[in-house]
Amino acid sequence: MTKAIIGSNCNIAETVKINDNVVIEDNVSISDYCIIGYNPKNVLSTKLIIKKNTIINTHSTIYLGSEIGENNIIGHNVLIREEANLGKNVQIGSFSDIEGYCSIGDYSKLHSCVHIGQHSKVGSFVYIFPYVVLTNDPIPPSDLRNGVTLEPFSIICTRSTILPGIKIGFSSFIGANSLVNKNVDPEKIGAGNPFRIKGDISNIKIPNSDKNAYPWIERFKKDYPPNIQDIFKDLRKKYL
Amino acid sequence: MTKAIIGSNCNIAETVKINDNVVIEDNVSISDYCIIGYNPKNVLSTKLIIKKNTIINTHSTIYLGSEIGENNIIGHNVLIREEANLGKNVQIGSFSDIEGYCSIGDYSKLHSCVHIGQHSKVGSFVYIFPYVVLTNDPIPPSDLRNGVTLEPFSIICTRSTILPGIKIGFSSFIGANSLVNKNVDPEKIGAGNPFRIKGDISNIKIPNSDKNAYPWIERFKKDYPPNIQDIFKDLRKKYL
Amino acid sequence: MTKAIIGSNCNIAETVKINDNVVIEDNVSISDYCIIGYNPKNVLSTKLIIKKNTIINTHSTIYLGSEIGENNIIGHNVLIREEANLGKNVQIGSFSDIEGYCSIGDYSKLHSCVHIGQHSKVGSFVYIFPYVVLTNDPIPPSDLRNGVTLEPFSIICTRSTILPGIKIGFSSFIGANSLVNKNVDPEKIGAGNPFRIKGDISNIKIPNSDKNAYPWIERFKKDYPPNIQDIFKDLRKKYL
Repeated sequence: MTKAIIGSNCNIAETVKINDNVVIEDNVSISDYCIIGYNPKNVLSTKLIIKKNTIINTHSTIYLGSEIGENNIIGHNVLIREEANLGKNVQIGSFSDIEGYCSIGDYSKLHSCVHIGQHSKVGSFVYIFPYVVLTNDPIPPSDLRNGVTLEPFSIICTRSTILPGIKIGFSSFIGANSLVNKNVDPEKIGAGNPFRIKGDISNIKIPNSDKNAYPWIERFKKDYPPNIQDIFKDLRKKYL
Repeated sequence: MTKAIIGSNCNIAETVKINDNVVIEDNVSISDYCIIGYNPKNVLSTKLIIKKNTIINTHSTIYLGSEIGENNIIGHNVLIREEANLGKNVQIGSFSDIEGYCSIGDYSKLHSCVHIGQHSKVGSFVYIFPYVVLTNDPIPPSDLRNGVTLEPFSIICTRSTILPGIKIGFSSFIGANSLVNKNVDPEKIGAGNPFRIKGDISNIKIPNSDKNAYPWIERFKKDYPPNIQDIFKDLRKKYL
Repeated sequence: MTKAIIGSNCNIAETVKINDNVVIEDNVSISDYCIIGYNPKNVLSTKLIIKKNTIINTHSTIYLGSEIGENNIIGHNVLIREEANLGKNVQIGSFSDIEGYCSIGDYSKLHSCVHIGQHSKVGSFVYIFPYVVLTNDPIPPSDLRNGVTLEPFSIICTRSTILPGIKIGFSSFIGANSLVNKNVDPEKIGAGNPFRIKGDISNIKIPNSDKNAYPWIERFKKDYPPNIQDIFKDLRKKYL
């Protein structure tokens, strides 16, 4: 165990508990009643790294053994367990439960109350809405962990459940309240319970307009890099 | 910024964090580990007002810029963001997420784990059960916010999702697990995914009885004003 | 009121609030920012008992008037209200909301974000996955409380809702996202919304195998007693 290392210009409330083996980089803000580097069984020898400029809101708990990228925003009452690997500019909504042994790519945004099961692979620029669950156990309960894969730019609407081992393709759109039990190809719409593929994302129009609503990169810029269109094109070539 | 003002006869635990620009009226109780007047970016010049007799349970966070009416009961681990306007005698269940820029009318009760999206308008005497989500984004992700309207005395059962811009009429009943994708007229039953209107609320009977279960005002009195029947009649005239 | 009694070899963080009338047995661990013996109205004369070897993680609140059995593991941000009776070796996942006036049998495991309504009876060796809701009110809102019964070894998958008064039979399996509106006999599969019985649990096979996946006792041993097969047989005789 080594004592926690805290960078310069950090803003950490007095009530934050920071355990050994934590590395906090510069300009990190952590609000009241957070637990940083939770290690209930004293068994992990790994570190928790929180990279520069990241903000963590009240009452959140982050385990030892994870990495939180730079410029992240972590909401209130968030739980992040061990072996979670978060990229840069990630947002994790309040009350979300990141169960560990998972990765979340750069610029992905999780709204409130998202459940990321172990062995999930969330690509970059993914958007996940409240109460989405990524499952992992094909014959519950078991020790099998068959994680979900969300390819970049995919969108999972409120309260959808993704069954174990499912892959959601690049820039696909999953409607609210779906139970996704089959893989979804890139740039498709899927919805419902029973789940159905409903066509191409180009079928969804901006309200009161004949313009395509998807991909959303031309119409929604908030907190994304200026070269997002180039990134999109490059990733599209890779995934399609 | 002005220092927090705290009324007389309040019962505020020592561990509660109260920021500047907060006004707490008389007889307010706030339990351990709450954050009152959260202001992460130091940008808001507005106040947080918590009116008399209100109770706030443990681990809740309320942002600067909102108003919490008198006689409210706020549960445990509740999050209330900025520009939330709560009437009097409102109850907000534990783990609920009030995303701000919304209003909740007098005597409305939210059970646990309710998600109120921005620009929601919840009328008075509404009852919302666990895990209900009021959405707001018609082409997620976007900057559009098309809030849900719940008219007075409407009832939204467990785990229903209301899609953006939908209006649920006066005294209507939405069954559990519904995905509501169309407006519902007053005094109707709606349920399912796909969502269907199932008839008039007068079709639902009290178990083992031929008496109508709805409107509920004759059979359920808990914490409501004695003149609730007059209020109901007046509002019914206004909304039907 | 009597002062709290705390056993030997306990590991209780300094920030834990422990009220009067609490009894904590030996070897109990309680992490930061928990509230033990919450008693908001000062009306209960009953105790809270937390039995030996139990672990309670951060930010959890447990009311006076309940009993937490030995060897329990209580997650983060859990709420347990009054008159909840938890057996031994129970696990309650993070963000779960145990509404009180309920029982949870030995060795039952609740994953994160499970909602146990009042008057629920959860048998032993039950497994409940995230976001499951056990309801209780047949004509919401009302004062009627018609609790759900889960018989031993039943399995309720992610995000299912069980309607008031429903009984799920011994070793039955409820699929993800179901809205359960009828009783389920022992050893059956039920799923969907509308809900349907889909046959016997023997129809589910281990992936890439012709072996039965259920009952799971032969293939999943984690934290269960070595004589689980004998217990299963004895209970099966009793319930079938």
